[in-house]
Order: sequence, then structure tokens, then C-alpha cells
Amino acid sequence: MRIHVQNPANDPEFSITEAQWRAAIARSPDMAGLQVSFASDDPGFAAALPEAEVLLTWVRPLRQRFPVGALPGVAPKLKVIACTSAGVDSAAPFDWLPDSVALLNNRGTHAEKAGEFAIMALLMLQTHMPAFADQQRRGEWKPLFASTLAGRRVVIVGLGSLGGGVARRAKQFGMTVVGVRHGSEPHPDCDETHPNEALDALLPTADFLVLACPLTDRTRNLLSRERIGLLPRGARLVNIARGAVWDQDAVCDALDSGHLGGCVTDVAVPEPLPADHRLWRTPGMIVTPHVSADDRERYNDRTLDILFDNLRALRDGRPMPNRVDPSKGY
Amino acid sequence: MRIHVQNPANDPEFSITEAQWRAAIARSPDMAGLQVSFASDDPGFAAALPEAEVLLTWVRPLRQRFPVGALPGVAPKLKVIACTSAGVDSAAPFDWLPDSVALLNNRGTHAEKAGEFAIMALLMLQTHMPAFADQQRRGEWKPLFASTLAGRRVVIVGLGSLGGGVARRAKQFGMTVVGVRHGSEPHPDCDETHPNEALDALLPTADFLVLACPLTDRTRNLLSRERIGLLPRGARLVNIARGAVWDQDAVCDALDSGHLGGCVTDVAVPEPLPADHRLWRTPGMIVTPHVSADDRERYNDRTLDILFDNLRALRDGRPMPNRVDPSKGY
Repeated sequence: MRIHVQNPANDPEFSITEAQWRAAIARSPDMAGLQVSFASDDPGFAAALPEAEVLLTWVRPLRQRFPVGALPGVAPKLKVIACTSAGVDSAAPFDWLPDSVALLNNRGTHAEKAGEFAIMALLMLQTHMPAFADQQRRGEWKPLFASTLAGRRVVIVGLGSLGGGVARRAKQFGMTVVGVRHGSEPHPDCDETHPNEALDALLPTADFLVLACPLTDRTRNLLSRERIGLLPRGARLVNIARGAVWDQDAVCDALDSGHLGGCVTDVAVPEPLPADHRLWRTPGMIVTPHVSADDRERYNDRTLDILFDNLRALRDGRPMPNRVDPSKGY
Repeated sequence: MRIHVQNPANDPEFSITEAQWRAAIARSPDMAGLQVSFASDDPGFAAALPEAEVLLTWVRPLRQRFPVGALPGVAPKLKVIACTSAGVDSAAPFDWLPDSVALLNNRGTHAEKAGEFAIMALLMLQTHMPAFADQQRRGEWKPLFASTLAGRRVVIVGLGSLGGGVARRAKQFGMTVVGVRHGSEPHPDCDETHPNEALDALLPTADFLVLACPLTDRTRNLLSRERIGLLPRGARLVNIARGAVWDQDAVCDALDSGHLGGCVTDVAVPEPLPADHRLWRTPGMIVTPHVSADDRERYNDRTLDILFDNLRALRDGRPMPNRVDPSKGY
């Protein structure tokens, strides 16, 4: 089987190297028969497509590379497109993707890192770190005490790789973990799981709300101004999903008014956030620059392991675990 | 047995109430025979001492209340002084304390909270939060990526209640946990334990160093300028012990020079820290105002449970687990 790895042109840190490939093959000797090519430029990409059966690529070039209807002509043997990101929203809508080609996301690379980031954010909010950051700027020593996370109720929207990683850590800290997902099957690290439709009823019960869902048509503006109003006074908020999942201005207003007790966001609209944006300066808000889920040291290794898991499933006639359902968007 | 509870005069939040006492007795019905009195003023304190066999008190008034040689005269029946703090350094030297009176610290109240604070601090340092705080002030969106804590080596100085709580959480995150303590008996959450004398040899191996020891004559200036120099370049530092345990100026210098990769401190010299102190403004330094170990919601309940555990040991002729060795200072 022929596989082409198309690396990003300007991001050597996220490029998959031949050494990483060889190390991954050493971990999965049954994949040693794969024929691999690498490129990071456009001519290399174009040259590889006629023969490639599997394409491993950054998600952003897909819609440009494959205008609607073009894929079967430029990549006639292609069966699998594996994306190196967990979210594939920037390739939507999927009108360019023939049914015969499976699109894989990279769900699973991010669980550990996202779980660590989110529990850090929950601990920071519980410990009043947004207030202490303001006090440090002013040189003000004013203790604000806080109990532990144990017994606090966290509602996690999305139980994929990110949300699942968060749930696992939250459980370790004795929180009551409530998952909101498509459907309502139980999750090993959640005390309760509820379907998306239950969100309005759950919001008033949340000490903490974590947004960890993919951005789709269904989740755009999910945390609307009205739903922010359903959260109890003093509720705290973490966003590791996408900025468009919430009403960003309404979140800032709710922090300004004291309705929300604090917020950590790793995402914003737009990214990068301009220097004069109110998000940077809203009291109680901590902003990080989209770093919550990317573990660059271990990322490429995990990416290749996940790809091989999926190719193994394809070979054995099982469903590929990372296949995206274009109608859902994840 | 007669017990007197002397609450602080100006800190109702930390005062033990009669309702908390009754709830603690309900958890420990074998203690129902205790006769208890409460006061928060000086006349009430003086009135209770002639009959009190057990005194539960804030640590600070002890040296004033009991000048050297005075205790047997003013409190002739006293057998136990239980302090509500884990550190009793502000009552040292213990020249005022007769051998016949057992001094108890409150070790055990702080483990959960201190463990949470310290793992938050480690996660913040690993995630570049000091740099992101600077960037947020400037409105600058500049990603800095980081892997997870797993596999990183943390050296924890002090394995009492605080250090033990830190070790437990660090282990949960897959860190290699190295404990430094008086003696070298193993600790269930440490991969290695070493005696204090091994510190110089351990410092060059530390990705992270956590100070969690009591302040005593032996630990004053323990992390001296010379020892800071033994840490590898980029090492990160957390202090939840006391400000006098490190050379504070040398820490700031090492952050300024880039030798240290970041620091979270919950303690300072002096406390409260004046607004113009360099600690507030040293790049890479995050300061919190001595809140790392106090869980006010659960503090008094834990304090009474620990006291009853010790009184039970006294009754049964076992060593009291929280008894302070005045020659060691903890």
C-alpha cells in the first residue's frame, strides 16, 4: 500500500520525519510493507497523488487541493485521508469528499495533554488564580482562600478525546463529573452522561463548565448569551473547544457583571487575537494561545500509531475507529 | 478531660464554632465525655488556663502567653497544646515548653489542598503559564507548546503532610517522584527517597523542585544561591514551605538570568509582600498570597478529627502522632 505524508510547508516542528516513521514501523512491524513518500511543497504533493492510496496530511490544504468534484481525477487510487488534527471543521463542508474515500481525524492524540490542561484550568479557577494574577500586576497581597475540587460538579460538553481526557482527571480529583454527548451511553469517567438536548437543564447545576466539543453546525454558538444566563452565579468556565462554540462577547459581559466567577480559554475569535481585543483585558479571564491539546514532543508518534491502528482495521475489514462521519462533522 | 479552645480574636473564619465541635463529637462518639470551653479574647484565655488539660489554639499567641518558665504556674494541669497550624516555627525556640507538656501540630489538615495547589503549580510551569501571563498583559498571541508532566523528574524537599500530598498527585501524573526527607525510609508515592544530606547530589537531576519542608534552623536558607546554581538550566521551582527556606534574591536573579525556567511561590519574605517588591515583577515568577494549604471550608473539621485521634492515642497509651519534637522543630 502506498502512503503519502504531506507535511506543512512552514511548520517543521509539526512535520513527520523519516526517523519518526521508522520508529513507528518498529513499534508496528506489521506495517513494514507500506511504501511511503514525504513532501512539504506543492509539486511534491501533486506528484504523489496519482499513486497514493493513503494520504496523511494537515487538514487546512484539503479544500484548496480538492475542489468539489476534483478528487477522483487527481487522486484516483485514494482510499483514506488521515488528518493530523482532531478537529476537521476547517475542511467542512465535505462536498469535495467522495463516499469512497474515508476521512480520518486524529482523535486520541490529544487526550493526555488536554486532560492536563483542563485540570490545570479547573484548579486555577478554584484557587482564584485570575484574581491573583490581577493582584500580582498591582503588587497587592490579599489572600483569598478556597477549598479543594472534591465534590464540585463539572459539566463537560463533548466526550471525545478531549472531553474524555478531562473527565478522567476530574474524576481523580473527586469531582462529580457530568458528561454531555451525542446520545447518552455511559462513560467510564463520568458519574452521569446526558444527551446534548439536556444541556439547558444541566447548566443551572454546574459549578464548572468545560467546552470540549468539535465545532460543527450544531455546536456553533452552543453557549449562547441565553445559556450563559442559565449558569448559576459564580460558575466558572473553561473553553478548549473552539472560540465559535460560545458567544464570546456575552462571556466577557458575564465576567464584567460578576455573573461568571472566572474563565480560562485556550481559543478565541479570531485567532491570533488582536492586541486590543477585550478578551485580553476582561477581569477574571485567562487567555492562552491555542496550546491546550498539542503535545509536540509526542504528537507525531501518536499520530502514526493512530494511523496504523486504522490501517490495521481497514486491512482486517473492521470499521476504522477514527473515521469522520461527514454528516456530523466529526 | 477539660479542653479549652482559644480562637483567634480577629479571624472568625478560622474560629472553631460550637456547632463544628458538636459535629466532630458526632463523628467521634468516644470523645463525648470531653468538657469544652471556648474563648477568643484574652480574659477568656486567662480564665480557662488554670483548669485546662488540653489547649487547642492558634500558634502565634503561645510565646507571648507563656514567657519562659511561666507555663507551670498559669496552666498547672496542662498536658497537651494542640496548634491549628502545620508549621509551629513561630513558637520556636521551645524554651517556654516544659517536657511534661506535649505540643501537637496540625499535620494532616493540609495534604489534600497542598497537593492540589502544588500540582496546579507544576502544570502551570510545564504549560508556560508565567510566559502566557506576561503575553496577556501585552495582548500578545504567541503559542509555546509543551508536553505533559509524565516522565519529568520532581524533587520534593520535605515529605510531611504537604510534601506527601504533592507526591501523591505528582505520581498520578506519571512524574518520577524523588523525596528528600529526614532519614531515608521509603514513601508510598515516591520512586526514590533520600536523606537531606543527598540534596546537593539530587539538585542537578531535577526538572522541577518543590520546597515543602518546615522552617527550622536546619532548613533556613536551604535553597541557597550556591544550591540554585546546582539546578540544571531551565529547572522550575515551587515554594509552598516558607520564604526563608530559599534565598529569595538569588531566585529572582536566577529567573532574570534565565538559569531558572519559572517559579510559583505561595510564600515570601516579608509577608505581606510590599507593593514595590521585585518578587512581584520578576519575569517567570508567579506569586500567590499564602493560600496553598488552607482549606477553610474543611479546615476546622479536619483539625478536630486530628485532635481527637491524638487524644485517643494519649488515652490508650500510644505515642501521639502529631507530637512535635522540640529539638527538631516539627
